[in-house]
Amino acid sequence: MTTTVAVKLYFEAAHRLHNPAQSEDWNREVFGKCNNPHGHGHNYVLEVSVEGEVDPATGYLIDMKVLKDIIRRTVVDEVDHRNLSIDVPWLAGFNTTAENLARAFSERISPALPSGVRLAVVTIHETERNSASFR
Amino acid sequence: MTTTVAVKLYFEAAHRLHNPAQSEDWNREVFGKCNNPHGHGHNYVLEVSVEGEVDPATGYLIDMKVLKDIIRRTVVDEVDHRNLSIDVPWLAGFNTTAENLARAFSERISPALPSGVRLAVVTIHETERNSASFR
Amino acid sequence: MTTTVAVKLYFEAAHRLHNPAQSEDWNREVFGKCNNPHGHGHNYVLEVSVEGEVDPATGYLIDMKVLKDIIRRTVVDEVDHRNLSIDVPWLAGFNTTAENLARAFSERISPALPSGVRLAVVTIHETERNSASFR
Amino acid sequence: MTTTVAVKLYFEAAHRLHNPAQSEDWNREVFGKCNNPHGHGHNYVLEVSVEGEVDPATGYLIDMKVLKDIIRRTVVDEVDHRNLSIDVPWLAGFNTTAENLARAFSERISPALPSGVRLAVVTIHETERNSASFR
Amino acid sequence: MTTTVAVKLYFEAAHRLHNPAQSEDWNREVFGKCNNPHGHGHNYVLEVSVEGEVDPATGYLIDMKVLKDIIRRTVVDEVDHRNLSIDVPWLAGFNTTAENLARAFSERISPALPSGVRLAVVTIHETERNSASFR
Amino acid sequence: MTTTVAVKLYFEAAHRLHNPAQSEDWNREVFGKCNNPHGHGHNYVLEVSVEGEVDPATGYLIDMKVLKDIIRRTVVDEVDHRNLSIDVPWLAGFNTTAENLARAFSERISPALPSGVRLAVVTIHETERNSASFR
Repeated sequence: MTTTVAVKLYFEAAHRLHNPAQSEDWNREVFGKCNNPHGHGHNYVLEVSVEGEVDPATGYLIDMKVLKDIIRRTVVDEVDHRNLSIDVPWLAGFNTTAENLARAFSERISPALPSGVRLAVVTIHETERNSASFR
Repeated sequence: MTTTVAVKLYFEAAHRLHNPAQSEDWNREVFGKCNNPHGHGHNYVLEVSVEGEVDPATGYLIDMKVLKDIIRRTVVDEVDHRNLSIDVPWLAGFNTTAENLARAFSERISPALPSGVRLAVVTIHETERNSASFR
Repeated sequence: MTTTVAVKLYFEAAHRLHNPAQSEDWNREVFGKCNNPHGHGHNYVLEVSVEGEVDPATGYLIDMKVLKDIIRRTVVDEVDHRNLSIDVPWLAGFNTTAENLARAFSERISPALPSGVRLAVVTIHETERNSASFR
Repeated sequence: MTTTVAVKLYFEAAHRLHNPAQSEDWNREVFGKCNNPHGHGHNYVLEVSVEGEVDPATGYLIDMKVLKDIIRRTVVDEVDHRNLSIDVPWLAGFNTTAENLARAFSERISPALPSGVRLAVVTIHETERNSASFR
Repeated sequence: MTTTVAVKLYFEAAHRLHNPAQSEDWNREVFGKCNNPHGHGHNYVLEVSVEGEVDPATGYLIDMKVLKDIIRRTVVDEVDHRNLSIDVPWLAGFNTTAENLARAFSERISPALPSGVRLAVVTIHETERNSASFR
Repeated sequence: MTTTVAVKLYFEAAHRLHNPAQSEDWNREVFGKCNNPHGHGHNYVLEVSVEGEVDPATGYLIDMKVLKDIIRRTVVDEVDHRNLSIDVPWLAGFNTTAENLARAFSERISPALPSGVRLAVVTIHETERNSASFR
């Protein structure tokens, strides 16, 4: 039997799908309109779930406000109202697809969690219809 | 290969986060505004999924109307338009966090399911952004 | 031709429908389960729209962040995580129906708006299915 | 560690729950108003998740546009604006419950996926409150 | 200054866009896939708003439960889990577009309202993206 | 009595709030993080409602598919997956606030409507919580 807590946070960012190691033609062919040089953008929804034991004194696995503060500090404050493909040092060097964002965000959130709280899944919703998860 | 059926039910309740075994100060410090003496409230969403075999005659794992009736009888009718921290005898003695509610609701729903239908996950959404699951 | 700007804010509160000038029986009959003595609660959505002229220098009718700060200061900070029927001095003396809340909130927001920005509609969504508006 | 990509597609269809191997009375008793002879209908949401490795050149597990095209071609174009219980040859012979649809859709989508991309879960949302999944 | 109360109700129905006074070809040309002979369907959302004076004793313009009961009795119970183009006597003789449904539903709801409560708008949402209103 | 038809369309775009006639300092002060030089972005929802008479032969005020095609051709195809502040010639020269977008989009949609169909309201939802309308 497992208890999981999940929270959603929001940020608004521009990005461009582009692999600089490939030609312009390759990029236009593979990424289509997502390769537009000046970028496009999303209202991203970042959904994070963690698992662990419930503390009998508080009834919390983790205070959701604390969990949100961790995610805000390690991820949201760094990406909100930014261009993910230009402005974020720790995203440099790889393409800002939902798959890569889910993994990069996991790697920043996981070590910041208090002991006894394990990261379960990080999901990036680019739109209401498209998402990627890393677990 | 597994088939799962999931339903959502809604209820509107007040609650207060408070551990009477601890001091007033501890409670205010730990629960902040959720410790307000006269409570606050939520439009709770209760999401329940079950798993099992599909009956070839009906094409149902379980008739979703029957599943909803079980959940309504064991949980929703007992908590809707109530104060979870005062009015519900079987919630007495522990704090009404989402984590504890998910577990307490699971323990009431699980034994009421027909044979061959196993409870998979119970999720309590306190808001669109905060939830806890018990599986 | 009119330009309107609309924002949504959220708060989580308990309340009880009750008219103390009437008998217990009248209250139970009229308000049913909404008259539960220890209250119930909602994730309220407060939707506010304003109208006026767009400033050519900023392209704003009003900076939505400023508008939200006004609503937060005059209403949300006073009612969030409270019991509307007990904890809010300026709601004392009338019943906390959606209709009455919409009017009471309008009367606090309207005079706090900058000149040239007129309050158009205040809507209180008690649930996704029930709302009241004051215009 | 697993990466998952999920997409949602929409279709609008009529259907009737009915097992022709059983009597009219049995059908009315078991399926109630869902057995209405001329059918009823839904805005179905079809949610599909797949898993596999992320390609370092593209940052994609699979291009979501390609994934949607596969689902559109194998399922959505065949069922959208149709009566599922009459118009779809490959649904003939079993009852169009959400459970059976989830399985039938899985069996059409799975073999159409490119190598290295495995079907994880297919979920049919009949309404915002009722769904069935096949994994 | 006006107070408005709005409620949403849900029903699941099949329908077919078809004008029997016109040829098969005209119908196929005008209504496309919505003219499919065996119909398609929707999870319809019926949104109704009414206006009037707030009763000082109750704080209600109208008890939303009473309003919903009126709409359920005059409309929802007649159309839920039905084929709108075949099963509903009072919809016979005109095409079941959202525009025509909004008007037909208004004409049934309006005379059933208590005195002092005026129908403001009836909106039919066929999908999250398409709706028609009658006011 | 008026009939209205409303549709929603979606696009994903980057933008930057900036008035080049003003200093860098003024822009940073007025637009804050929305002035980020490389932009940020949104999943914009464009909601358009039109009014007019219902054609008795079709039951349509306007075929919603035709209405969507007009909006797609005049607006969505020009702004989707673009940077609104750089890539769209007819948005050059003013700031891409929601207020200005609502007006600019209205001016492109209105003359493209068939005779007898009047534009009622154009609403731009930047997020689920912020929108501007032009009527």
